[in-house]
Amino acid sequence: MTDPIALTADLIRCPSVTPEEGGALVLLQDVLSQAGFDCTRVDRAGISNLFARWGAKGHARSFGFNGHTDVVPVGDEAAWTTPPFGAEIREGFMYGRGATDMKSGVAAFAAAAVDFVRDTPPDGAIILTITGDEEADALHGTTALLDHMDQCGERMSVCLVGEPTCPNRMGEMMKIGRRGSMTAWFTVTGVQGHSAYPHRAKNPLPAMARLMDRLASHELDRGSDHFDASTLAVVAIDTGNSATNVIPAQCSGTVNIRFNDLHSGASLSDWLQAQARDVAAAFGVDVDVRIKISGESFLTPPGPLSELVAKSVAAETGVTPEMSTTGGTSDARFVKDHCPVVEFGLVGKTMHQVDECVEVAQIEQLKAVYTRILTDYFS
Amino acid sequence: MTDPIALTADLIRCPSVTPEEGGALVLLQDVLSQAGFDCTRVDRAGISNLFARWGAKGHARSFGFNGHTDVVPVGDEAAWTTPPFGAEIREGFMYGRGATDMKSGVAAFAAAAVDFVRDTPPDGAIILTITGDEEADALHGTTALLDHMDQCGERMSVCLVGEPTCPNRMGEMMKIGRRGSMTAWFTVTGVQGHSAYPHRAKNPLPAMARLMDRLASHELDRGSDHFDASTLAVVAIDTGNSATNVIPAQCSGTVNIRFNDLHSGASLSDWLQAQARDVAAAFGVDVDVRIKISGESFLTPPGPLSELVAKSVAAETGVTPEMSTTGGTSDARFVKDHCPVVEFGLVGKTMHQVDECVEVAQIEQLKAVYTRILTDYFS
Ligand SMILES: [Zn+2]
Ligand SMILES: [Zn+2]
Repeated sequence: MTDPIALTADLIRCPSVTPEEGGALVLLQDVLSQAGFDCTRVDRAGISNLFARWGAKGHARSFGFNGHTDVVPVGDEAAWTTPPFGAEIREGFMYGRGATDMKSGVAAFAAAAVDFVRDTPPDGAIILTITGDEEADALHGTTALLDHMDQCGERMSVCLVGEPTCPNRMGEMMKIGRRGSMTAWFTVTGVQGHSAYPHRAKNPLPAMARLMDRLASHELDRGSDHFDASTLAVVAIDTGNSATNVIPAQCSGTVNIRFNDLHSGASLSDWLQAQARDVAAAFGVDVDVRIKISGESFLTPPGPLSELVAKSVAAETGVTPEMSTTGGTSDARFVKDHCPVVEFGLVGKTMHQVDECVEVAQIEQLKAVYTRILTDYFS
Repeated sequence: MTDPIALTADLIRCPSVTPEEGGALVLLQDVLSQAGFDCTRVDRAGISNLFARWGAKGHARSFGFNGHTDVVPVGDEAAWTTPPFGAEIREGFMYGRGATDMKSGVAAFAAAAVDFVRDTPPDGAIILTITGDEEADALHGTTALLDHMDQCGERMSVCLVGEPTCPNRMGEMMKIGRRGSMTAWFTVTGVQGHSAYPHRAKNPLPAMARLMDRLASHELDRGSDHFDASTLAVVAIDTGNSATNVIPAQCSGTVNIRFNDLHSGASLSDWLQAQARDVAAAFGVDVDVRIKISGESFLTPPGPLSELVAKSVAAETGVTPEMSTTGGTSDARFVKDHCPVVEFGLVGKTMHQVDECVEVAQIEQLKAVYTRILTDYFS
């Protein structure tokens, strides 16, 4: 039996802060190769990624796992009560950066896959896509792996992302979709002047205030069948003018949108551009808009894959998971263009925090859930 | 005859950038003492000021002049084509910091007063209040002089401030009032959070956008008999948050108001506070307001003093001055609590700029205007 707890500890001891590989993928490649997995390092633009397949390439029943070994920085190291790359166990919890997000998840599915192919070799394939670039820009991580697969004729029939999905209690939540995410940067340009003679200037700030008020007040939607309402957050308005007798020439504003399946990055971009044009015309100023779409929303509607995962979770944990679409983005936003994808992992409460930790028992439980999913999938 | 051109040049050569006295008041005290003026240095909090009276203290006919010898900083010295404290004359113009604002004005009224009391000693008094703190905070300048006068039983019956008042052409404008000026700093405080979960945060930015939109859209008035409409300029909104996935806890906004005689600093403060309270309640955030009233609006309605000045200007320049209330603040805002006050001086086009300069002929003309005013006043 492969011990997922020891493997988690070994992975935590690899200081794999994005974009550092830190030894984590080398370690996994070693474990998987020995278990008969065909391993390929898919490195791109200084980022390391690992593709591993057991079974025949292009098999119609290819079960995929996706995860990442990179971690966010340690933050205030002095505030940690254990070494952040130490993997110390204290009162049933293992501590370290990546303990929940998501070295335990990777260890659990790798251990499950290794034992499963050894004990009950399936008629099919198991594919592991493990990236070193999820926490940062994610430009050369899972996308690089999927590009590689396309080029080589590799396919997953379905995919399970092992990110932590449970808010508080093991088993309570899985994800069948995620909202999309985009950011828009607005720059309003007018004409500088003296506060005493505002008619000779063209103040960009009232236009910015109107624009931000309109955007923030607008109800994007009230939610859809599987999604909460989309949200728009104004995250910054800045001028950088400290002279109270000067009307500045320019100011900037930033909004971040998390959107459900009623919108797309393109439809929202059109809306933002139209709002900017309206305000520019009304105030006689110039409004420039720059938009970055970090990910489109996606949904794998409840069906065979989500049922399979939910049943296995319920069987192993005694809790029927909610099929949720909440939270930030994950690499599932890339995988969804390749095959049906859902996400299930353990409790993520301490992710990205000081003293990030995982309940040791949950790692075993997670391996058991993944093993049962494989068993059911191939039976 | 006292030469106001030479006196202007001597004053320009004193580097009296606020709060430096720079020798300017010492020079004036010397000139005025020799002419029989009773001089007192009224220094307060490191600022130098000069009080000078010819004639009996408390005389019922006491004509006052007010001006300042301090100047704004040179700015980009390399951009000047003559030394900023050099007082060089080129093609009929004298160059230097303070050439128009307002060493020429001080020189003109000092020269006029000196010659007038020598040639035609009046039955009355002439009082000069000259400060070294007008360009900065003006906390210890003309107010210190007026405080001193109150304490010593000194009084001006009327006062003429010698600031440059003509936009382009000598004689075209005098000021019979000024708008008030105030600045309000708003701080909106909410609760920080993650952009993906805005319902768990309390974003201060939509409240700020609404507040600034409301303030900027509001019509304060449409002007009054002697004043243009009051204006409100939003001069800054700032957040200082560069993380697009973070909803900030706080943001700040600043507005500057120039108001006419339909308002007071207090009435506008009440209005601003009420707007802040409204928005705070509507958005469930905290809105803090800090207000600084730099000066109340004031008006010396057209009457004997303004008629006297207008007539003298017309006689000496051939132009009948418009009685205006436009422009920024001046020390007339303090003097108005003491006695009727109007302002007349030369063309101020280059004030505070690189290569500030004054047309030499205008200095003579200004002395002639001031002399005629004294003659008419005491006749
Ligand atoms: Zn993660
Ligand atoms: Zn001035």
